[in-house]
Amino acid sequence: MAIGLDEIVLNINADHLANPGEDVFDPELFRQSAEIVIAKLEKYLGESSIRGLALANPYALLEAAKDLMTDEHQSIPAFDQEKLGAIIDLYIKTGIQVYSPGYMGRQFSGVIPLAGIIDLISSIVNQPSSFYEAAQLPNVVERIMADELNKFIGWEPETFAMVTTSGATLGNLTALLAARNHKFPNIWSEGISALNGQYRPAVAVSEDAHYSVDRAVGIIGIGENQIVRLPINKERQICIEQVRPTLEAAEKRGLKVFCLVVSAGTTSVGAFDQLDELAAIAKEKNIWLHLDGAHGASLLVSDQLRHKLKGIEKVDSFVWDAHKMMFLPGVCTLLFYKNKERSYGAFHQDASYVFEKVPDMYTQFDSAEQNFECTKRPLIMNLWVLWALYGKALFAEKIEYLCDLTQQAYQILKADPDFQVLHKPEANILCFRYLPSNLVDTDFPDFQVAIRNRIKEAGKFFISKVDIDGIGSLRVVFMNHQINTDHIRMLLSEIRKTGQDLLNLKNNH
Amino acid sequence: MAIGLDEIVLNINADHLANPGEDVFDPELFRQSAEIVIAKLEKYLGESSIRGLALANPYALLEAAKDLMTDEHQSIPAFDQEKLGAIIDLYIKTGIQVYSPGYMGRQFSGVIPLAGIIDLISSIVNQPSSFYEAAQLPNVVERIMADELNKFIGWEPETFAMVTTSGATLGNLTALLAARNHKFPNIWSEGISALNGQYRPAVAVSEDAHYSVDRAVGIIGIGENQIVRLPINKERQICIEQVRPTLEAAEKRGLKVFCLVVSAGTTSVGAFDQLDELAAIAKEKNIWLHLDGAHGASLLVSDQLRHKLKGIEKVDSFVWDAHKMMFLPGVCTLLFYKNKERSYGAFHQDASYVFEKVPDMYTQFDSAEQNFECTKRPLIMNLWVLWALYGKALFAEKIEYLCDLTQQAYQILKADPDFQVLHKPEANILCFRYLPSNLVDTDFPDFQVAIRNRIKEAGKFFISKVDIDGIGSLRVVFMNHQINTDHIRMLLSEIRKTGQDLLNLKNNH
Repeated sequence: MAIGLDEIVLNINADHLANPGEDVFDPELFRQSAEIVIAKLEKYLGESSIRGLALANPYALLEAAKDLMTDEHQSIPAFDQEKLGAIIDLYIKTGIQVYSPGYMGRQFSGVIPLAGIIDLISSIVNQPSSFYEAAQLPNVVERIMADELNKFIGWEPETFAMVTTSGATLGNLTALLAARNHKFPNIWSEGISALNGQYRPAVAVSEDAHYSVDRAVGIIGIGENQIVRLPINKERQICIEQVRPTLEAAEKRGLKVFCLVVSAGTTSVGAFDQLDELAAIAKEKNIWLHLDGAHGASLLVSDQLRHKLKGIEKVDSFVWDAHKMMFLPGVCTLLFYKNKERSYGAFHQDASYVFEKVPDMYTQFDSAEQNFECTKRPLIMNLWVLWALYGKALFAEKIEYLCDLTQQAYQILKADPDFQVLHKPEANILCFRYLPSNLVDTDFPDFQVAIRNRIKEAGKFFISKVDIDGIGSLRVVFMNHQINTDHIRMLLSEIRKTGQDLLNLKNNH
Repeated sequence: MAIGLDEIVLNINADHLANPGEDVFDPELFRQSAEIVIAKLEKYLGESSIRGLALANPYALLEAAKDLMTDEHQSIPAFDQEKLGAIIDLYIKTGIQVYSPGYMGRQFSGVIPLAGIIDLISSIVNQPSSFYEAAQLPNVVERIMADELNKFIGWEPETFAMVTTSGATLGNLTALLAARNHKFPNIWSEGISALNGQYRPAVAVSEDAHYSVDRAVGIIGIGENQIVRLPINKERQICIEQVRPTLEAAEKRGLKVFCLVVSAGTTSVGAFDQLDELAAIAKEKNIWLHLDGAHGASLLVSDQLRHKLKGIEKVDSFVWDAHKMMFLPGVCTLLFYKNKERSYGAFHQDASYVFEKVPDMYTQFDSAEQNFECTKRPLIMNLWVLWALYGKALFAEKIEYLCDLTQQAYQILKADPDFQVLHKPEANILCFRYLPSNLVDTDFPDFQVAIRNRIKEAGKFFISKVDIDGIGSLRVVFMNHQINTDHIRMLLSEIRKTGQDLLNLKNNH
């Protein structure tokens, strides 16, 4: 009898080895775990309290996470539903509460929940989308979305290109490479050394550009010292009058500016550069004009707000983050090129296992030659499915609401003598300072940052900070349509109270 | 009364404007749509038929996709459950059937379904993870996973670093930048022009390296002509005996090789370079040694297979794609550095709105200075949750099964005179040719590729092709534990039949 039992055990082991990990692939287990998660997320989405961020001590969180891990590594433990539940609770609890009206701090949002569900499908069907063969629908709908969005740009059909990529940092890098390789066709093969120091390639950038542009210049071998900084005006746009003189001074220093990077919705204040004027200069000087529209390009879908991007059809390339004001999960970046051919110039390569030697009906839908990634998530699917089901109004109405709300916040702040508002908002970003009459600036140089940090730690509101002209400021970004002017007034009174508490603390020390 | 009705309409509109898009955020709608999707995915996961890819005419697919789109763009249409269902069906149907035993063609897999569910959570909680503040748990568990995985590498705790990034192409680029900036500290600021052509920086690479390495060299301004190709031996590893002579010849041509890129699991055949020997050469020559372990580093988790990566503790950096042999959805790339400090050398930047001037307990968990991305998905979560619940055995058992299966396929092919097997498999990739006695090579130079394309189009098996020494070959990658030797035999008989059909067609023309 004992022998019989041994045999059973051996049989089980043999089965197990023949199909290891079978259980974790069980469709019913998939449904059960999905149901646990859906229930938790439904509850999370239904919570309406005003809350920002519960900042945890990372070392304590590290221990809490470790406590949730199995010690068993020799065989596969059974599925532990309670542990999964505890992990999800911890994950949700420690995040910025992006669906709450207390969240006013960053350029990502509480996403349209259906987009998350599409991400689940994308993860399961696993269709890396640099090649049509592996991701047929994503590659086809990329073309459809390009045409849909071009309705707001106005290029001739078939003459432009749209590429999806993993974030605007990568989008900006890709465009800069296309520009570099277009203006200096030998660099890809021969390297920058081949220029033999005749001249130094350079990139002109707004003083207020996103750090990813500087980073790209460092990456592609141009060197950050070859960044020509274009002065900004009091609206924090590139100051048009100073562009030509600045470029000409750079030329005299031996720099060859091949790309001009401008912004639609700067990260700091949401300023929009004047595209018509900048395009005229770029054309005159034969410089590639790239627009970082990561934040602001979404305004294109609004009939009311599109005018902020007037002239966009004249730029050579621009990036647009649909994971910002199109309310999608990170990441979904769209990179547009005015001239389709140029989109093939960012990279050159040869790899027989991926690239077909003779293009056919299928491979002409591949994007691997245009996008940086080899394995790329089907980034477009979140955007297309929402667009297919709901059309542009879903996005336009929400964007208009948020930009309007920001105007109202501006009016409220302007009317309050204790606050200094730093700019007239163009989109949904607003920067200001709390400057009560009992504050002596020199006593408390970090006053704004101290307020921001204390508010963040209190956990009710999540706002951000930014240096404006080297001085700390408070910054709100309205990404959440649950926010109304009552919440803005609540925030201001919390700032006031926090500021006064800090001043009292200071005075009592 | 008519006026009364108008007022009601106006009120509704006002409400609507106050909270646009409210419906799409409804938690109950979220649950309902999730349930539709879960049911469809459960069914999909339960299908056991042998199938590969149903390749659609892209133009027909484009029309099918367009037919599923709303024409309403002025107001938000009601949620259309049927349309969502039709979209999901189309998405699933047109993908490579990665969960079927017919799928043998690429390095991505039918993912562990729970990972897809974690992706859903990540999309909803939306925690961009370059900063601790925005993604506390992801940043903490990155440290935990680094230590867990280092158990298989063996570096001293706290002395190494692990960074997550969006794909191995980006991981390889990041490592090459860290190497470039370490060896030429001035390039970041001054650019490659500053070297004044004294010498040309160069990168040494296996003849069989992935195209992303060439691409990275083009990107960072070194120039593809400065790639020094290291000859390979018949196992398609870098030929150790030829490394020193090749490097020395490059030096004589004025090249300064600063980085040596080797592979663990080449894309073509899955060859593993000999790390101990290569590390000795790199040390002697003072060259950064980077390992592209995108495919093969996963073998580290197996006690049986870890020896293939012997010497990995000596490399300066390596990438590891958890979305390949750790069976996660794309993408989750791990980039390891032997020396922690060096991980901060790939990028330099200053941006007050993101980087804190004074590091504190929280900001030391930020990764934005080490990873390329500004907005980055919490890539680590899929891996950590599975590791926390199931431990290493889940991965190790499956990897061992697949590598063992590949050995069995090798034996089957070797015993069959009609097939030529091109290498002894080291992992789960195997390349071979069908060379029946009635084939006259010169009559049909593209015979292998023609077989592959026809098999792909037939839709039962999905296999890939690769050039080996300039000649087309068939290639299988076993990523799916549902596959057993019966399926392999079925594939071979389909290849045989397809090949004979093609020869008959040829002879009848």
